[in-house]
Amino acid sequence: MQLTLESARALDARDPLAKFRDEFVVDDADTIYMDGNSLGRLPKRAIARVREVVENEWGKRLVRGWGEGWMDAPTRIGGKIAQLIGARSDEVIVADSTSVNFFKLVHAALDAREGKKQIVTETVNFPTDAYILQGIARTRGKNITYVSPQNDVAISTDAVVHAIDNRNCALVTLTHTAFKSGAVYDMRAITQAAHDAGALVLWDLSHSVGSIPLALNACEADLAVGCTYKYLNGGPGAPAFLYVRRDLQEQLFNPIQGWFGQKNQFAMDFDYAPAQGIARFNVGTPPILSMLAIEAGVDVLLEAGIENLRAKSIQQTEFLIGLWEAWLKPFGVTLNSPRDSKIRGSHVSLGHPDGLRIDRALIEEMNVIPDFRFPDNIRFGIAPIYTRFEDVYCAMERLRRVMTEKLYEKYAGERPMVT
Amino acid sequence: MQLTLESARALDARDPLAKFRDEFVVDDADTIYMDGNSLGRLPKRAIARVREVVENEWGKRLVRGWGEGWMDAPTRIGGKIAQLIGARSDEVIVADSTSVNFFKLVHAALDAREGKKQIVTETVNFPTDAYILQGIARTRGKNITYVSPQNDVAISTDAVVHAIDNRNCALVTLTHTAFKSGAVYDMRAITQAAHDAGALVLWDLSHSVGSIPLALNACEADLAVGCTYKYLNGGPGAPAFLYVRRDLQEQLFNPIQGWFGQKNQFAMDFDYAPAQGIARFNVGTPPILSMLAIEAGVDVLLEAGIENLRAKSIQQTEFLIGLWEAWLKPFGVTLNSPRDSKIRGSHVSLGHPDGLRIDRALIEEMNVIPDFRFPDNIRFGIAPIYTRFEDVYCAMERLRRVMTEKLYEKYAGERPMVT
Repeated sequence: MQLTLESARALDARDPLAKFRDEFVVDDADTIYMDGNSLGRLPKRAIARVREVVENEWGKRLVRGWGEGWMDAPTRIGGKIAQLIGARSDEVIVADSTSVNFFKLVHAALDAREGKKQIVTETVNFPTDAYILQGIARTRGKNITYVSPQNDVAISTDAVVHAIDNRNCALVTLTHTAFKSGAVYDMRAITQAAHDAGALVLWDLSHSVGSIPLALNACEADLAVGCTYKYLNGGPGAPAFLYVRRDLQEQLFNPIQGWFGQKNQFAMDFDYAPAQGIARFNVGTPPILSMLAIEAGVDVLLEAGIENLRAKSIQQTEFLIGLWEAWLKPFGVTLNSPRDSKIRGSHVSLGHPDGLRIDRALIEEMNVIPDFRFPDNIRFGIAPIYTRFEDVYCAMERLRRVMTEKLYEKYAGERPMVT
Repeated sequence: MQLTLESARALDARDPLAKFRDEFVVDDADTIYMDGNSLGRLPKRAIARVREVVENEWGKRLVRGWGEGWMDAPTRIGGKIAQLIGARSDEVIVADSTSVNFFKLVHAALDAREGKKQIVTETVNFPTDAYILQGIARTRGKNITYVSPQNDVAISTDAVVHAIDNRNCALVTLTHTAFKSGAVYDMRAITQAAHDAGALVLWDLSHSVGSIPLALNACEADLAVGCTYKYLNGGPGAPAFLYVRRDLQEQLFNPIQGWFGQKNQFAMDFDYAPAQGIARFNVGTPPILSMLAIEAGVDVLLEAGIENLRAKSIQQTEFLIGLWEAWLKPFGVTLNSPRDSKIRGSHVSLGHPDGLRIDRALIEEMNVIPDFRFPDNIRFGIAPIYTRFEDVYCAMERLRRVMTEKLYEKYAGERPMVT
């Protein structure tokens, strides 16, 4: 692969997914958006869909909207997400935030393994997962074993497997693609090891869904959660999804027993009885505007095909890493992501002691929008559904200018506000 | 008050709030919408706001939106709702669903009264509150005392006070305005009685907020939750609010320890430390489209003034009850709401053994949209911000036709899908 603008454009010209860029609003001219792993771009179809929901459904159909496509939105959209993660359509719903869904499934899993005390997770987990585990472990008297890799890049499936206490482990829970490094765990091996110990596994798929083909059923994964506003392009803070394997659904219980998880909800019976199947993991009335916007983004991904997206993503992260090696490594910029594409997701982290200042300079001086994670990770998110090879090329070229001309020196190391 | 169309129109002509109807989309011609207590109408300003959020903020500002009005939306909009409920601006946030907020505050309250075992609530509470309490009581070994009024209309403040065990009560929690009858509890008396017993009080304000002036601070209320899609006109399933009195905020803890409730969230520290003040009751990333739509509706209510809205609401429910007495009582239709406006909210329930069939006939034959709650309550919601006296008149006139011509006889008693 040649590291020239011409070769980048040639790759774009041959890209079978190139046409999908037109499905998204891209009118920010000179800006190179490399933060689709934080907030995906706006699908054009979502504009029409939200207008319809607000102006026609809410505005004119009013409360009748519940009988006309709102009530079944959690299962309908969940069923589509299921196709992206190797699950059956009745195993996924969209509901609440990732954090709330994680809370529900951790409690449900611990109930199902009541006598056991160990929870295994890792120190490179996304903080909200760690915070929620800490709260639950304290109130329920559980112990958390934190697997601590040598560094953020080198997460180790073996270390996780080794940490599982075969007699006492209730739950293993990991972020499938690490939010800083983009390193990917071996879902099959870890799930198998957890099952061998009689434990359940809960995967946080937030940084995987929509960019990596997943095989929850084939791996016999028990539980999963994930967010919809990154690679699914569902919109800011759009509600999250959760997965419970079909044969577990009737054995597990939602600790937040809300009326949307009630059997025969509108009978308004006074005593709680869980709904059948995955619906019991609903809680309250879902936020319909944010919920229905998700569907547009998911539909576009399904049309593109997750295997095709993954193939392009690997090509693009390889291209980015090639440019890093040629242009940025000499400046002391490190690769904080795995070199091997088989265990790398769709974002690449580059590190530098002045990382935060470099991130600010990229945004302010260069119109490149990555994001930053402490202590030193500049994350470049590649969303193959709309990111071009040319974007990758120009982002690295501009980063080279920041380094060459030391454009970051005037920036302080204040903390950015991004999610 | 004369019971004629002319007198209704005369009341509309004199109504100082009449102009606010123009703030809402009302283009359903012959339809009379009496379900603003389930889903409020669409404020015109919300159309513009949601278009801006989707097409400009998400579409063009992308992840930068978090620093430009998204991040502070929970506290900013919460601060406005505070003005409607007699609270300080730093005591209210918008977050999650009512059910999830209720779950958080019940746990927080029980933690703060750890040794005590009694929870007092009532059998006319909204089901989701009851379901959530049942789940929490089971896992924490608490006892629920259900106050059971003689009938739905006759909720009794005295009966609640009497049920409080002075040595053992941890929490009293009630729906302030009952969802079936519209009967309103005496917030001051019940809060005082709970405090005398050393218990905390948690109010569900879903059917009160935006229609009745509330005085949470003046009553020294501890905790409250409520929904935004009824009288606040926030949109279908819009996120809910929660209130924690200022002096309690540092003593109480969120059982769902998500990253939006974390101190210095973007430091991404690995150990949980609660944010200061009300922000600790946030959990995950909020659904921004649904969240920001709320603000338009709240702004319109603040401009109208909650005292003015209450005055008009009382006039309108009195008018409705006058029409019921003259026209419907002779058909055996009962008043399932209090006759005394001082203890009545902004919806009126009319009962009949064929209530569900009458409800269907009103919708299908008469273009009147009330809603229905088992066993026999046809609820007519009055949203004084946009409901006209003429609407009330015509709704009752059409109901009279349904009764006179027995138009309900062809409908079966199947259960409707409304929330």
